[in-house]
Amino acid sequence: MDRYLILSTDGHAGLPMERYKDYLESKYHAAFDQALPIQREQTRKAEENLLIAEFNDKWREGIEDDLKGAWDGTVRNRVINGDGVAGEVLFPDGITEQNAPPFGAGLGLKPWGIDPELQWAGARAHNRWIAEFCSEEPVRRVGLAIVLMLYDVDEALAEVKWAHEHGLKGILIPALMGDRDGYNHPKYYPIWEYCQEHNMVVHTHSGPSPDYDYSLPGAMGVFLTEFAWWAARPMWYMIFGGVFELFPRLKFVLTEVSEFWVPHLLELMDVRASVKHTSGKLGDFRSNLTLTPSEYFRRNCWVGASALFDEGSTAVRHQIGIDRVMWGTDYPHPEGSWPKTREKLLTFMKGLPEDELTAMFAGNALNCYDVDVDALNEIAARIGPPKADFVGTAA
Amino acid sequence: MDRYLILSTDGHAGLPMERYKDYLESKYHAAFDQALPIQREQTRKAEENLLIAEFNDKWREGIEDDLKGAWDGTVRNRVINGDGVAGEVLFPDGITEQNAPPFGAGLGLKPWGIDPELQWAGARAHNRWIAEFCSEEPVRRVGLAIVLMLYDVDEALAEVKWAHEHGLKGILIPALMGDRDGYNHPKYYPIWEYCQEHNMVVHTHSGPSPDYDYSLPGAMGVFLTEFAWWAARPMWYMIFGGVFELFPRLKFVLTEVSEFWVPHLLELMDVRASVKHTSGKLGDFRSNLTLTPSEYFRRNCWVGASALFDEGSTAVRHQIGIDRVMWGTDYPHPEGSWPKTREKLLTFMKGLPEDELTAMFAGNALNCYDVDVDALNEIAARIGPPKADFVGTAA
Repeated sequence: MDRYLILSTDGHAGLPMERYKDYLESKYHAAFDQALPIQREQTRKAEENLLIAEFNDKWREGIEDDLKGAWDGTVRNRVINGDGVAGEVLFPDGITEQNAPPFGAGLGLKPWGIDPELQWAGARAHNRWIAEFCSEEPVRRVGLAIVLMLYDVDEALAEVKWAHEHGLKGILIPALMGDRDGYNHPKYYPIWEYCQEHNMVVHTHSGPSPDYDYSLPGAMGVFLTEFAWWAARPMWYMIFGGVFELFPRLKFVLTEVSEFWVPHLLELMDVRASVKHTSGKLGDFRSNLTLTPSEYFRRNCWVGASALFDEGSTAVRHQIGIDRVMWGTDYPHPEGSWPKTREKLLTFMKGLPEDELTAMFAGNALNCYDVDVDALNEIAARIGPPKADFVGTAA
Repeated sequence: MDRYLILSTDGHAGLPMERYKDYLESKYHAAFDQALPIQREQTRKAEENLLIAEFNDKWREGIEDDLKGAWDGTVRNRVINGDGVAGEVLFPDGITEQNAPPFGAGLGLKPWGIDPELQWAGARAHNRWIAEFCSEEPVRRVGLAIVLMLYDVDEALAEVKWAHEHGLKGILIPALMGDRDGYNHPKYYPIWEYCQEHNMVVHTHSGPSPDYDYSLPGAMGVFLTEFAWWAARPMWYMIFGGVFELFPRLKFVLTEVSEFWVPHLLELMDVRASVKHTSGKLGDFRSNLTLTPSEYFRRNCWVGASALFDEGSTAVRHQIGIDRVMWGTDYPHPEGSWPKTREKLLTFMKGLPEDELTAMFAGNALNCYDVDVDALNEIAARIGPPKADFVGTAA
């Protein structure tokens, strides 16, 4: 094939707020009607306080119609064809803030401030819709279910099963904030086991964070310094908790956290896991592990490298592991590569060896997700970026 | 001088629990009597669950008497003379767990789970005692007050003033955990201003962490992966909050967090603070700053490099800034260099240039703390490690 297959491991899809009602159990409709204006107001305020209007408005100019691909399958196919993308892993929150599921069940979900039953209702509404959306294009759309693991485990497990039976390929789990049991708790084993046995890939994604007070100076800088830590935190709970020791085929993906610091994290975990005089006084912290933390990472974990992919990411691809890095466009978020994916790929990747590009554009994702390789390749043969474009030295 | 001056920037001092009563306001004596057996039981349990008895018992063999230097000035002078240490910065919690101030006011203090009034009473008991302890050896003992900044600011400011007026040289502030206002809040400005004007150095120290459930597998590994982050978190709240912009002579010291990862943190903050396409959509996060985060660090912050100092620390000393690294022994904690400080210094520092050793052993600390250099040098001329020992290549 003279074109690259791209399986973008970071895409977002979600309905306009009001349309989630159709996917919500009717007993929550009254609560939905009450919550909708509140959600609208929060969205408006978030855009006003946290997002730079000029930047976002300018970015949206001329692509308003293409943004509808967040929920419109026809638009989406057209857009990703133009982007050279054959398939996508789909997280919630199509257009940031505007297409988040109801009851705080979206990308940045917090396990507090809302009744778990309502948050579950919101998550299930999204899961029903995304399953339907993916069923329209089962080759190209790799859907993830939102699973609120930090509440009742049986309920969470039932949702993972539902998701698998309805064609979804993985789950998005909450970040560890607040005082719910961490992912090192044995009560979660049945979920990990089911995910392992049915190749349901477990994900976290940047976004969740504590309730920073954005009226204070520097709060955005604090968020930027911390967001990747909150997203990655479940991973070291699982690594040190022995989850990948007990479930050696379980797969975990850390998405849109930027890449340059991942080798730092691997080094940090390995240093901390090594018994030294300085840690010798402490209780047992590794008798449940047969590998080092970075070895679990290199066997069980991947990085969904998307919006924040830059020259720093390219520089550390081998330190992370060339078989761990999976490219993504982050469509339709403004921080992603779309609508300039082809240019951006050339900016940061032109001149890299073909086997490395093949791995990062799709090969690694094909090892991770349960997808139809042949069918994806057929699509890529039509719309993928030409391999010839990547030969030579970077711009 | 043919010997090095060592001003250890990480020492611990504290009374045996029951003796704090003498320094506690009498109206809290009844509460103290009630809390004492609980604190004892918590200490016993912590030692049983979290600390490896064989390691700690073996380490204590033959040095039991020397440990009393945690509160006994005569013993302490003898011990640090033997260690080659002229002076010390003194944090609470003399012997880990066993000499912590009452009412959870020690090194690992959490801003929850106890009435702030009681925690303040415990902190003040320690502050009164440490001021007295330091007044016995005003040259050699650089005392820090525990200041519970996250509660009432006026009360905290009054305590900082009391500490300064009673000869203490800095404050230990709580880590940012839970939902109290972060250190980017303007309400803290009066404290920063007072600290700047009176050279009261602000400190965090490893130890504080959320309430991990240590009965779960891997919890200690999670603690080890996270402890430095919790200790360092106040620093980036202050940096991004513009605290060092507004108070350019304020001094902040991050103690016993290990050094190898500090360059990672500086890189992370600088990357996050740089406007890129990926952060362009976000609200303002640096118009309050005229320097990069790492520039504030290199002007206003130091690292108290102690127990976790090793070959990894030596390797990054220039990346951190050779003028930012201050050595410490962590006496009398078992993870520190004592009672083998002389050997340990040679292991990791032999062969380094004299000017670098001079800086890390004391020169940087002399720039940071308000101490009597001449008097310290007189002591070092008698008990400091011979410079000749450090000439040559590392063992």
